[in-house]
Amino acid sequence: MIYDVIIIGGSPAGLTAGIYIARKKLKAVILTKNVGGQCLLTDTIENFPGFDLISGRELSEKMRAQSEKYGVPAREGVEVESIEKTDDNFLVKLKGGEKMEAKSVIIATGKSPNKLKIPGEKEFENKGVSFCTTCDAPLFAGKDVAVIGGGNSGLNAALDLVKYANKVYVLEYGARIIGDELLQERLKQSGNAEFLLNAEATEIRGGSFVEKIIYQDKKSGGTKEIFVGGVFVNAGWLPATGFLSAQCGVDLNEKGEVVINPKTNETSVQGIFAAGDVTDVKYKQCVIAAGEGAKAALSAYEYLMS
Amino acid sequence: MIYDVIIIGGSPAGLTAGIYIARKKLKAVILTKNVGGQCLLTDTIENFPGFDLISGRELSEKMRAQSEKYGVPAREGVEVESIEKTDDNFLVKLKGGEKMEAKSVIIATGKSPNKLKIPGEKEFENKGVSFCTTCDAPLFAGKDVAVIGGGNSGLNAALDLVKYANKVYVLEYGARIIGDELLQERLKQSGNAEFLLNAEATEIRGGSFVEKIIYQDKKSGGTKEIFVGGVFVNAGWLPATGFLSAQCGVDLNEKGEVVINPKTNETSVQGIFAAGDVTDVKYKQCVIAAGEGAKAALSAYEYLMS
Repeated sequence: MIYDVIIIGGSPAGLTAGIYIARKKLKAVILTKNVGGQCLLTDTIENFPGFDLISGRELSEKMRAQSEKYGVPAREGVEVESIEKTDDNFLVKLKGGEKMEAKSVIIATGKSPNKLKIPGEKEFENKGVSFCTTCDAPLFAGKDVAVIGGGNSGLNAALDLVKYANKVYVLEYGARIIGDELLQERLKQSGNAEFLLNAEATEIRGGSFVEKIIYQDKKSGGTKEIFVGGVFVNAGWLPATGFLSAQCGVDLNEKGEVVINPKTNETSVQGIFAAGDVTDVKYKQCVIAAGEGAKAALSAYEYLMS
Repeated sequence: MIYDVIIIGGSPAGLTAGIYIARKKLKAVILTKNVGGQCLLTDTIENFPGFDLISGRELSEKMRAQSEKYGVPAREGVEVESIEKTDDNFLVKLKGGEKMEAKSVIIATGKSPNKLKIPGEKEFENKGVSFCTTCDAPLFAGKDVAVIGGGNSGLNAALDLVKYANKVYVLEYGARIIGDELLQERLKQSGNAEFLLNAEATEIRGGSFVEKIIYQDKKSGGTKEIFVGGVFVNAGWLPATGFLSAQCGVDLNEKGEVVINPKTNETSVQGIFAAGDVTDVKYKQCVIAAGEGAKAALSAYEYLMS
C-alpha cells in the first residue's frame, strides 16, 4: 500500500496535520514515539486558545481523537530511521526494519531537551537530574532544587517545583530573566523561589544522589555552590532531525532545524513538508505549531492534487 | 494613557494575540465590532484542534475569557477609522471621534464577504439574498435555494442548508468543486444537493422576495435559470483594511491583504504587526489565524522590549 501522506511526529503540529489531511479524505498515518511529544512535558497549558487550563496530555489526546475520527490513525511506539526518495515516492524506514511508502511526507518530530554537557549531568540522570518537572517534581517534596534556565520553560519548571520543593533556585546564564513577567511574578509570590543571574552551571556533584551544583558567577568571576537534592535542566531544545541523512536532501539550518518556506511549509525536497518546533519557525508554542501543521497539510494536499 | 499594544479585531487571531500579550503583562486592549468576527459565520467548527465540535461563537467567547482573565479586555461595538503615526507612537482614531494612543498595533481585522455585484444582489439583501447560513438557514425551510461558490465556505453553507431546504443547488464558476471531498460526500449523501459546474451567476430576480437566479452555462454558452427562494453568496472574502490609508504606510498586496513578514508578522511599518485572514497568509483557517496571532503578539513584545 502507498500512503498519500506519512506524518512523522505526534505533537500538536503532527496531530493537527492529521486532522486536516483526514478531512481531505487522503490515506495517511501518523508515526510517533509517543502521542503528545514535548507537549507532555507541560503539566498545564494556559495559553492554547479555547482552553483555560489543560494538560499537554489531555490536549494531545483530544487532537488524536479528532484525527482518528476522520480516518488518520496515530501509530505509537514507532521510530523512523530514515526517509529515502524512490523514483516517484518516499520510502520511510522504521527502526526494526519495517518499510512504508508514501507520495508525500510531513515532518513534525519536534525537539528534545538540550543537555548542558557538564560533569555529573549524565551520571546523575534519574538520580536527581531531570529534564521533566511534570514527571518528577513530586519526587522532590521538601527538598532544595535548582532549575537551570530562566526562559519560559525554566520558569514553568520552577512553578511546578515550588508546589513541592522547600526552595527553588533558578540559575540563569544571562544578566536577566527572559521568561514571561507573569511567570516571574508568580514565582516571587510563591516565597520559595530565588533567581541567580549570570550563573553558569559547571558541575553537578553527589554520592548516590545529587547533592550540590557548582556554578561560575560570571559577574564576580568566582565559583559558588549550592546544596540541592535535584537539578532540572531547561537549557533549550534540539530539533529531532537525526533520521534526516544528507542523502535525503532536506536542508537544515545551523541549529539543525528544518528550513521551510514560511508561507507553504515546503522543505528543500519537493513532496516533503515540515511543521512546528522541528522547523526554523521563530516561536515554539503549541498553538503556533498547530497552525503550522494545518498549513503543511493544506500544502501537501495541493501538491498531491497538482 | 498610552497602551503598549492596541489589537484591532476580535476574531481568533486578535483574541489569541490578546492571550499572549496579556501573559506578557503588557497594557493592551482589543478593539472590535463584534467578538468572533467571521468565526461567527460558521455554525460548527470541526477542525480546530482540541475541539471535536464547537460553534464559532463558543470558541470565540472562550478565547475572549482567556484574554480578559489575564488582563486584556475586548471592547466590542467599536470601529477603527484610521491609524496615524505620531512622533513615537500610533494614534488610533475610532468612528465617533475617540482617539487612543499605543506604542504598537496588531491588525487582526479579518475579512468580509465578497459581493457578486450582479443585478438583484443588493436589492434582495435580506429578502432572500444572504451571506450567512448560520444566521438565516432556518428561514428557508422547505424552499429551494442556491449557494454561489463551491469552495469550503460554500460547501459548509450548503450543508447548513440541506437540513432545512427542500433542494440546494451549488453553483460553481469553475469546472470542478474545490472544497473538501469530505464535505462534498456529505452533501451527496444528503440527497437534496445538486452541483452545477461552469455556472456563472448573472442576475437575481424576484418580486417582494427572491424568485429565481439566472446563470451563464460557461460550457454550453447558454443562459439558464433556476427557481429558488434564497441565494447564499459564498464568493470569497475581502480583507477588512478600509481603515488603512495610504499615509499610514502599511503595504497591501493586489488583493488588498496586509503584506507581512511570514516569520515575524511585521508589516512594512515598524511597530505595526498583523495576523490572520486580513494578511497575505496563504490559508485562511481558524487555527492558522490563532497561531499567527500568537506570533504577532510575541513579535510586538520583542519590539517593545528592544
